Amino acid sequence: MTSAPDAPSDGRRYDLFVIGSGPAGQRGAIQAAKLGRRVGLAEMQGTLGGVCINTGTIPSKTFRQAVMELYSAREREEGHALSARTVEMQGLLSRVNHVMENEQEVAKRQLERNGVDVHWARASLVAPHRVRLEPQHPQGGPPVEVHADHILIATGSTATRSPEIPFDGDYVLTSDDVMELERAPRSLAVVGAGVIGTEYASIFAALGVRVVLVDKASALLPFVDDEIVATLTYQLRRHRVTMRLNEEVSRVEVVERDGERRVRLGLASGKQIITERALYSIGRSGATAGLGLEALGIEPDDRGRLAVDEYHRTAVPHIYAAGDVIGFPALAATSMEQGRLAAAHAFGGPIHMQPDLLPYGIYTVPEISMVGRTEAELTEAGVPYEVGLARYGEIARGQIVGDLSGLLKLLVHLETHEVLGVHIIGEGASELVHIGQMVMGLRGVVDYFSETVFNYPTFAECYKTAALDALNRLAVVDSLEL
Amino acid sequence: MTSAPDAPSDGRRYDLFVIGSGPAGQRGAIQAAKLGRRVGLAEMQGTLGGVCINTGTIPSKTFRQAVMELYSAREREEGHALSARTVEMQGLLSRVNHVMENEQEVAKRQLERNGVDVHWARASLVAPHRVRLEPQHPQGGPPVEVHADHILIATGSTATRSPEIPFDGDYVLTSDDVMELERAPRSLAVVGAGVIGTEYASIFAALGVRVVLVDKASALLPFVDDEIVATLTYQLRRHRVTMRLNEEVSRVEVVERDGERRVRLGLASGKQIITERALYSIGRSGATAGLGLEALGIEPDDRGRLAVDEYHRTAVPHIYAAGDVIGFPALAATSMEQGRLAAAHAFGGPIHMQPDLLPYGIYTVPEISMVGRTEAELTEAGVPYEVGLARYGEIARGQIVGDLSGLLKLLVHLETHEVLGVHIIGEGASELVHIGQMVMGLRGVVDYFSETVFNYPTFAECYKTAALDALNRLAVVDSLEL
Repeated sequence: MTSAPDAPSDGRRYDLFVIGSGPAGQRGAIQAAKLGRRVGLAEMQGTLGGVCINTGTIPSKTFRQAVMELYSAREREEGHALSARTVEMQGLLSRVNHVMENEQEVAKRQLERNGVDVHWARASLVAPHRVRLEPQHPQGGPPVEVHADHILIATGSTATRSPEIPFDGDYVLTSDDVMELERAPRSLAVVGAGVIGTEYASIFAALGVRVVLVDKASALLPFVDDEIVATLTYQLRRHRVTMRLNEEVSRVEVVERDGERRVRLGLASGKQIITERALYSIGRSGATAGLGLEALGIEPDDRGRLAVDEYHRTAVPHIYAAGDVIGFPALAATSMEQGRLAAAHAFGGPIHMQPDLLPYGIYTVPEISMVGRTEAELTEAGVPYEVGLARYGEIARGQIVGDLSGLLKLLVHLETHEVLGVHIIGEGASELVHIGQMVMGLRGVVDYFSETVFNYPTFAECYKTAALDALNRLAVVDSLEL
Repeated sequence: MTSAPDAPSDGRRYDLFVIGSGPAGQRGAIQAAKLGRRVGLAEMQGTLGGVCINTGTIPSKTFRQAVMELYSAREREEGHALSARTVEMQGLLSRVNHVMENEQEVAKRQLERNGVDVHWARASLVAPHRVRLEPQHPQGGPPVEVHADHILIATGSTATRSPEIPFDGDYVLTSDDVMELERAPRSLAVVGAGVIGTEYASIFAALGVRVVLVDKASALLPFVDDEIVATLTYQLRRHRVTMRLNEEVSRVEVVERDGERRVRLGLASGKQIITERALYSIGRSGATAGLGLEALGIEPDDRGRLAVDEYHRTAVPHIYAAGDVIGFPALAATSMEQGRLAAAHAFGGPIHMQPDLLPYGIYTVPEISMVGRTEAELTEAGVPYEVGLARYGEIARGQIVGDLSGLLKLLVHLETHEVLGVHIIGEGASELVHIGQMVMGLRGVVDYFSETVFNYPTFAECYKTAALDALNRLAVVDSLEL
């Protein structure tokens, strides 16, 4: 337990040491502190919050909000994209710094209030319980080592880069670069139709950018309900997105054309895509390089991600991992819960976990959210269900807001009437899904929605409409069963 | 049961006859039809939907939406009203007709699909079970009489007019006139700070109109939680609304000034208010005149409203009343439920009613919504509670949208942790309240919110923040109890 004679040390001992200050790290640190433990946290960037606050979630959602505010209900209803030719990105992003600074400040106050020691340093593991901290600031002093009973790896992820792609941060971008653009390009190729790629493709398309979306798979967002994906696809096409699915990019180059630089993508099928910029979003890799994990017997996979058990333990039981570094779903809300759960498990805190009830929020235009299972999953599992549908166009609020294509879908157990899944696309989806989540969590049945009085005019009314639709279908099934 | 020899009759007999096609009438008619009954309905206007679709809820909410779309997050955050000097109301209202026609069409299809006979006629009761129908269309033919086992009065309300006020529909307006304005006035006096007056005052103020709000009471919206009202009042003042509470209008006149007409209000306190237009919103009166109720022993009150029991029966048990005609709360959602309940009671349908869980949605700027009880009501009833608060400014979504003043407040039973009330002011309030309503209805406790994973960034996260706040306060109480 004493350090080797040549090892630098400030002698500090922590019950938990957290590496990374994104949603998973923050929440894990705070949970441990609330359980009375001594907690240290290392952040190697100059600011708290990780990708979530600084380059990912917060900037992209603030950008999305600015784009959405340019829309009127009429434009939404008619499915027009905006036609602004030259959009100063930095004008649209004028609020981003403000929002980021506020979120950083909130994170800082929370950590301080809970007595978490923040080290502005790059951390690595030099022994199972020893963390080496290399200050990143020039005046940060020499490296030190600290002792940690438990360790939480919450180092997040970076955009996956393939060596044959000429990333330059200007013409060929990763999602980490896109918010640095000075103005929106007139045309953009997005390679990779996962959550991040589809979000950016849909937001830029709404802004009037000509977008080409390329993916090897045959559909967007494979984990999302088919009908929701079909609605998104329809909306993307109305916003003039060209879909190139089942296509592989074989070659990427920046070319000169009429004195202007362009990106040329060659597809394996022989097609060519020429656009002002290209955004490569082929996944994110766990930020595990240089942590010293391999020497301790923790092997990241080929994309740097860590495998964990249900309590978020890695192969070394006192070393936990949470957040983007463990891969899917890599959503802020889920990462927070993972971090909390890891700390709760380490120190005997409350472990309530309803993994079936983790919501997914996808900030495409239009927005998507879901909780519970999809039709495909239920069919696979042999669970008999019926569907209840409500279309935004049928309810007053959809008409008022001009969102006529929105859709709320309930999946209901054929016999018990239990709500098995809620799938929404349209304005407010990420908020609305929680109405269904509450009923699922408290084991309410679909009949409950049909008996509830909802404010008028709201999107929430969709739950009643969808429930009545489901009950009508269930009644038909009942009446035909002998 | 035979009609008098001189009584016109087409011989039709109905199980239920509904007078009025607003939310209460429509829903009552459909509920009875779904229970297999023969239903007739009379509407004396040329269109279905009553005040809700044609002059009240739908037009005002569409107007509000148009005003809100003019706002950017920055303006919202800085609390600026818009400064458009000349706002063409009809431009803002360009979508209204479209939305209204769609809602009328939805109503028409629903009634048709359920086999409800619609009579375009003025109805009155000539005997306890006989309804006289006087067609309002020139080609409508002679009056007829029909038989009805049960009758539902859902005739709605009209703006209350006081004979000493010189209403002219142009300078001195009721809420029925306001959507007819060609352009927004530069200044507007609103007399009456109930739901309708406060909604219009706040929407016009957001649009940059100088608004003076006058009421005899000492606060706006007396049935709403004090802290929510205080937040609304603060926001109204930021939008330069002058509040004249505890003040009575003693004189109203249209005067000529510099060649332009103005409205002058003299207050009992001696103050004068001079504005371009005045909106009188001193309540609404039940539309019961000419129905022939008195002869059957049903006495409307001094404002034309009908008293009903818990099943919506009037003094004559087979004659029900629902919606605005019975007074408070006169909200579309509640009226629908009342109409449904009346029909369900008449014909033995399901009567699920959770009167504690009727939500209130008030479409002021910012929006207000609530379900359950207020602090004042709980204190009055001697129920011990704690408060859990979340401020929009503290959560990421509030920062992104620029709504920093929003507030979500949970009232929680001190011992059982039961959620007793949810009070929200801010963007999305009327949708968000249903998350809390579900938990209240399914008897969940506040701890449930603290264990739920909410999408990030959403306003729904306020439930978790507020729940943690409440649990912290409850823990302090617990730890001090010996």
